Amino acid sequence: MMLSLDVRLQRPLLLSRCICIFWLESNSKMAHLLSTSFSVKISSSNRPRGQTLNQVRAVLPNSFTIKTSKSHFKRLVSKGDRARKSCVVLATAVPVSKEVSANPRYGSDGSPSDSSKPQRVMVIGGDGYCGWATALHLSNKGYEVAIVDSLVRRLMDHQLGLDSLTPISSIHNRLRCWKAITGKTIELYIGDVCDFEFLSDTFNSFEPDAVVHFGEQRSAPYSMIDRSRAVFTQKNNVIGTLNVLFAIKEFREQCHLVKLGTMGEYGTPNIDIEEGYITITHNGRTDTLPYPKQASSFYHLSKVHDSNNIAFTCKAWGIRATDLNQGVVYGVKTDETSMHEQLCNRLDYDGVFGTALNRFCVQAAVGHPLTVYGKGGQTRGYLDIRDTVQCVELAIANPANPGEFRVFNQFTEQFSVNELAALVTKAGKKLGLDVQTISVPNPRVEAEEHYYNAKHTKLIELGLKPHLLSDSLLDSLLNFAIEFKDRVDTKQIMPSVSWKKIGVKPQTMSAN
Amino acid sequence: MMLSLDVRLQRPLLLSRCICIFWLESNSKMAHLLSTSFSVKISSSNRPRGQTLNQVRAVLPNSFTIKTSKSHFKRLVSKGDRARKSCVVLATAVPVSKEVSANPRYGSDGSPSDSSKPQRVMVIGGDGYCGWATALHLSNKGYEVAIVDSLVRRLMDHQLGLDSLTPISSIHNRLRCWKAITGKTIELYIGDVCDFEFLSDTFNSFEPDAVVHFGEQRSAPYSMIDRSRAVFTQKNNVIGTLNVLFAIKEFREQCHLVKLGTMGEYGTPNIDIEEGYITITHNGRTDTLPYPKQASSFYHLSKVHDSNNIAFTCKAWGIRATDLNQGVVYGVKTDETSMHEQLCNRLDYDGVFGTALNRFCVQAAVGHPLTVYGKGGQTRGYLDIRDTVQCVELAIANPANPGEFRVFNQFTEQFSVNELAALVTKAGKKLGLDVQTISVPNPRVEAEEHYYNAKHTKLIELGLKPHLLSDSLLDSLLNFAIEFKDRVDTKQIMPSVSWKKIGVKPQTMSAN
Repeated sequence: MMLSLDVRLQRPLLLSRCICIFWLESNSKMAHLLSTSFSVKISSSNRPRGQTLNQVRAVLPNSFTIKTSKSHFKRLVSKGDRARKSCVVLATAVPVSKEVSANPRYGSDGSPSDSSKPQRVMVIGGDGYCGWATALHLSNKGYEVAIVDSLVRRLMDHQLGLDSLTPISSIHNRLRCWKAITGKTIELYIGDVCDFEFLSDTFNSFEPDAVVHFGEQRSAPYSMIDRSRAVFTQKNNVIGTLNVLFAIKEFREQCHLVKLGTMGEYGTPNIDIEEGYITITHNGRTDTLPYPKQASSFYHLSKVHDSNNIAFTCKAWGIRATDLNQGVVYGVKTDETSMHEQLCNRLDYDGVFGTALNRFCVQAAVGHPLTVYGKGGQTRGYLDIRDTVQCVELAIANPANPGEFRVFNQFTEQFSVNELAALVTKAGKKLGLDVQTISVPNPRVEAEEHYYNAKHTKLIELGLKPHLLSDSLLDSLLNFAIEFKDRVDTKQIMPSVSWKKIGVKPQTMSAN
Repeated sequence: MMLSLDVRLQRPLLLSRCICIFWLESNSKMAHLLSTSFSVKISSSNRPRGQTLNQVRAVLPNSFTIKTSKSHFKRLVSKGDRARKSCVVLATAVPVSKEVSANPRYGSDGSPSDSSKPQRVMVIGGDGYCGWATALHLSNKGYEVAIVDSLVRRLMDHQLGLDSLTPISSIHNRLRCWKAITGKTIELYIGDVCDFEFLSDTFNSFEPDAVVHFGEQRSAPYSMIDRSRAVFTQKNNVIGTLNVLFAIKEFREQCHLVKLGTMGEYGTPNIDIEEGYITITHNGRTDTLPYPKQASSFYHLSKVHDSNNIAFTCKAWGIRATDLNQGVVYGVKTDETSMHEQLCNRLDYDGVFGTALNRFCVQAAVGHPLTVYGKGGQTRGYLDIRDTVQCVELAIANPANPGEFRVFNQFTEQFSVNELAALVTKAGKKLGLDVQTISVPNPRVEAEEHYYNAKHTKLIELGLKPHLLSDSLLDSLLNFAIEFKDRVDTKQIMPSVSWKKIGVKPQTMSAN
């Protein structure tokens, strides 16, 4: 069965007045074509206070075809027939004429897909901070993208009484907006990768050539709130990744796994940090071995567990995998998320999910002292979110070989916390902000003064053009924080989770 | 409330004719004293075919007191009031006069217990091969012992259609027999350490000074049967250990964790294997870091995950832990398990749970060729089960310091598989057995010829007196296998699990 609809428009129309939505609801047995040409107002319940929505200025081509293949339709109908734990939402309206021309470059060594077709990339955790920016970037670059997400990150905000600085649209509205602006479809599968039945169906439905796996609980403080969150973090992250590995082995053995790790896996050794492996000469013999890991939270540990599990499956099953040990990401805008406010990325400034530089900019914007934990000599690798999306694209475009467990350190510069505070103070002054810094008791267990020198050349060799931290980026980020400062809840800023005080009693947030 | 019962016997009696059982059922609100003096026949549904039970020759003292403390009684009554998922069975009849004299030596550095009292040791997984022998040994040495076990290992045998070479009694009968023979009580808590409510109650009830943690899925092939077993292994092992760590932190912060790891965590690096840590000089700087791990099954990986988690909690919370990276254990008899057939340990010879030397002896006994996987150059550390119990005792008696993550390599000799096959062949010939060896395709992914030199001096320094593999041990083990050869099911011998063929479909054993 083929549903084909030819819409011929007399002249280019503003998208805000003419949007084609081909909406397939997960639990209906029929695909409902809501409208082929109608006026729709894009609205969001998260609209920032006091702001009006900008009109979308993107222009549609004069002629395009909306097409749903037989197999897609059949799949959706059959899904409707089954009682399912997971809700699968597919927006399969595909402007075919556009997509055929998209053909990202791809490594020549055992490329899993026909080179005449765009690569199909599944972004697990594609509703999150890094995942959302990555999904849009890859879609924009011509990849066929599907987002797989349980949306549990949004639930965590609700449960802890936290919120993104920026108002973020629902994933459904985000994807409708992206489609409206670019004509590009990002498929959406809502469910939990720990549920293997869901993951199997998703793999067999989307048939990915690459999987980018951001779908993990990614906050160290969250993992240190209480026993149940510690257990959740390790179970969720480890089992989810095991399931992805099994799905690749069973259904898509040539699929390239691009897994987000963290620089935090290495800890702060007193020797240089290499990219994944270190050559050791010991008692007259030499071997190249996995770089020793010293993670310092249940979250960071979960990433170490993942790395070890993935390395084994590369060796035992021939899985091709790239482990991106990412530094601390800062910034909020990418080319794609800037296209429309409905595409705006989340920005976390709270004590649980907020990370150093982003949190400092928000603190500066609202006149809260910058909170340096302890002595502030803690040094880590950092990168702009525009480099996150670039790095992932580079990894996909240059896949690991079958059986290869490849490790890249994904960051561009090192800073101590004190250095970041000084940079934000300086940038704030230029904007007329009076920025103070205070030292607060370190809620973590970590060295506050230490040697740190981590290698990060492999992504540069693949072509990464870093966006180094600049005055203009800090200006932009500070101005962004100032724009949304009315949304800041200062009660969320201070660290609330202690590495030493974690207990077995479930912690809840009171409304006081 | 104090229940005290004074039983004065006129003369020493054979235990088979006079056994005092103080039996507290988990779900009753009253403690039922079944009998103070009665004749009982110890029977076992697993009695070996064609054998009669020996009379127990141990002799009771002329006078002893059975005593239940107020707290124990109260605890049991309160348990009866609550609906519980886990069954807690406590046999709390304690011959106090005997126990007060038992006072194992104990390290002077921050000893958690009053030195005038025996240490209380919780043996998690105390119904298993190593756990059972260890629990009895520690009880025999004067420690107050509790076994915590979900008995899931027995369920796995049922599900996979496997069985121990030796008939093993129920845990309840085992402990009744131990009590009858020695007068020593081992408390029993039946439940799953992944259930934190159960574990909490167990900790607060028994109040351990040391926890010996054998309570994990311990078979590499089991973890490679299918996806669900892989996931079970990692979830069960990692979460169980996390729970134990949280229980120690919350309830018994001075409690010493003695955790069973495995030499398999290290893999087969081309440099010497150190005990847990290695000092690395790199680019002119030096640090001592965790020894790099290269585990080669989901089971071995779970132990690596555990080690990393434990190391973190030592640093963050001050947990005192000893990680015993154990080699392959062989043998079946210890001083204690030899005391009575009801105390007999299990001996696995099947392709899932059987390990090299034990399996070879059983194969030799039944005339099955010794099955060498691949080239047979695989070299590992081995130890006699009598040294397992000795090593655990040494670790308990010399605890780690608060915050210390101490790693011992627990084995006594290295052998290649080919060397073991040659030793068994030679020993078999002496007993008139015609022992053949065949090479079967290696079901694992591992190097079959490699460098291997692993250090193992730390336990020797603590006082370990190794039982090196000798002709007499092999004679004894072979004779033991011959004694039970009628129980051998030859269908269980060959490897049935392939590292490369593991799939996502749950595997079941057919009855054919």
